[in-house]
Amino acid sequence: MSGRRLPAEPGELASRIRAGEVRAIARGLTWIEAGGLRAEGLLEALYPHRSTAHVIGITGAPGTGKSTLVRALAREARARGRSVAIVAVDPSSPFSGGALLGDRIRMTDLAHDPGVFIRSMATRGALGGLCPAAGGAVDLLSAAGRDLVLLETVGVGQDEVDVMRLAQTTLVLSVPGLGDDIQMLKAGIIEIADIHVVNKADREGADRTIASLRAMLSMGEAAAGGWQPPVLACVATRDEGTAAVLDEAGRHLAHLVESGEIVRRKRRIAEARVLTLAQGLLAGTLDRSTGTEDAEMAAAIDRVASGDESPYRCARALLARTSRAEGDSPRA
Amino acid sequence: MSGRRLPAEPGELASRIRAGEVRAIARGLTWIEAGGLRAEGLLEALYPHRSTAHVIGITGAPGTGKSTLVRALAREARARGRSVAIVAVDPSSPFSGGALLGDRIRMTDLAHDPGVFIRSMATRGALGGLCPAAGGAVDLLSAAGRDLVLLETVGVGQDEVDVMRLAQTTLVLSVPGLGDDIQMLKAGIIEIADIHVVNKADREGADRTIASLRAMLSMGEAAAGGWQPPVLACVATRDEGTAAVLDEAGRHLAHLVESGEIVRRKRRIAEARVLTLAQGLLAGTLDRSTGTEDAEMAAAIDRVASGDESPYRCARALLARTSRAEGDSPRA
Repeated sequence: MSGRRLPAEPGELASRIRAGEVRAIARGLTWIEAGGLRAEGLLEALYPHRSTAHVIGITGAPGTGKSTLVRALAREARARGRSVAIVAVDPSSPFSGGALLGDRIRMTDLAHDPGVFIRSMATRGALGGLCPAAGGAVDLLSAAGRDLVLLETVGVGQDEVDVMRLAQTTLVLSVPGLGDDIQMLKAGIIEIADIHVVNKADREGADRTIASLRAMLSMGEAAAGGWQPPVLACVATRDEGTAAVLDEAGRHLAHLVESGEIVRRKRRIAEARVLTLAQGLLAGTLDRSTGTEDAEMAAAIDRVASGDESPYRCARALLARTSRAEGDSPRA
Repeated sequence: MSGRRLPAEPGELASRIRAGEVRAIARGLTWIEAGGLRAEGLLEALYPHRSTAHVIGITGAPGTGKSTLVRALAREARARGRSVAIVAVDPSSPFSGGALLGDRIRMTDLAHDPGVFIRSMATRGALGGLCPAAGGAVDLLSAAGRDLVLLETVGVGQDEVDVMRLAQTTLVLSVPGLGDDIQMLKAGIIEIADIHVVNKADREGADRTIASLRAMLSMGEAAAGGWQPPVLACVATRDEGTAAVLDEAGRHLAHLVESGEIVRRKRRIAEARVLTLAQGLLAGTLDRSTGTEDAEMAAAIDRVASGDESPYRCARALLARTSRAEGDSPRA
């Protein structure tokens, strides 16, 4: 199968992706990163065929061992016979195209298992705002039949919180002694954590970190749907406690389904996807205006720059123009 | 003057703001933070009357002494007879409404000088994406006739980079021994720095930090318009070197004007303003759909959530709907 040429037509590539062909998946993700009509055609073809993949988001400050935990979770899931995709997302910069290469290399013990697909992506738009690539990647991997999608981010910031909106279950990592509790609170990450994981729990101060997380959580409101975020300890480098983390993620998904909370969560994911895509279309229109493709829009921006037109009026023009242009464009 | 009631009509409030009345400025910023048509009416009225305020952005990792430098720059500018506004922006979270209160308190030695207006804002939208409030605040303060607007962010991340797009001159702070060079590179902050400031330069390792910044800069491309970002040292707590920082910021603005680069920079600012506003309008439409105001849009999101409709189709519908709604809405 791997010897066959990959199709250049979205519908055909979609078929090969649905069959789970790894090269087709990789090609599809490249299309999605590039964006545009080809990406859209592909995802239109795949969207109705998404499976019930469990999407687990993993976030935490640098140095908390996210990649190590992700790798341990992937190994554990494979041992249980489940297929896995790992998407490592760097939303921090439009400049870091080669983001997370180090993580990819560190994951080489999994690299030869076709049951584990690994990809890193930079998802930041040049004009600011998250690119829709991460959401598209999750949809594609779900349509490809992966049982588990592990969505890892590089740090803890608002962009990471936005990425975590794509997950059904969000793990937030901390480690003893990093003193990042305040940083986490700042970024609003506590509010999105379904499961807290204290990694490197063999270090001094682990009990204190666990206790302070629990104390903080006990002060918060009861989570939506009655889920009380647990605090788990593990040592990911030694695979200690990581099976329990995977178990707990499974319990969280089951809870979402049983409580009916899954409906709200799917709606939240849908909202994030739709808004990101629409914002991306706006940025695309603006981006074309900086070239010579759209002299009218370029002139409007110049009028704003010189103070002859308010940015509000121009923002409306941008919306109208994007809406018109997108309504006219061919569908795949 | 301060005894007069503040008007509830945008045009009248705009007049009072243009007269420089501090209470009117504060009220106007509150309107801008709340957003909506009242904010828009106010900024429509103010936009043509923006003065030639010099907007200086100040960013850097936590612990680099941004607030202290901002305060020192404000004092120095006041000593030179210039009026100042300080806007401290926290783009990290929609949850931190009381952002930067600590900074405000620490600035109390300036609090009784009407020539220094101080405001902190949380600028993150609940659905992700920067709110247009920071851009609106800069426009308002410029129309109020402030000579210098100091725009401070809390950390170094992509959101901070986006905020810095509103400034004519961007200062990036570092301190000896924080080891944040890599972090800065990651966030793409090097690319936007017009002036590097090494604060706490009396600490050990300052020479090394300065040298490594210079080495890094010498490897980069020549900046747009021929400006070579300088590296300055200061000890902001003792006002050492801070006057030179203000001088250098002035030289940078002069360079922008003389080289004609100011045109491009104003265009960049205009693009960022317009895109942020348009994206905010989209988020507003989506936000209304979660209530009962817009059953049609809510149903579309539900179809995406259940997989019956692709997010692309829905994103187009969101654009069309926002464009239509905004075209119909009354203008102030």
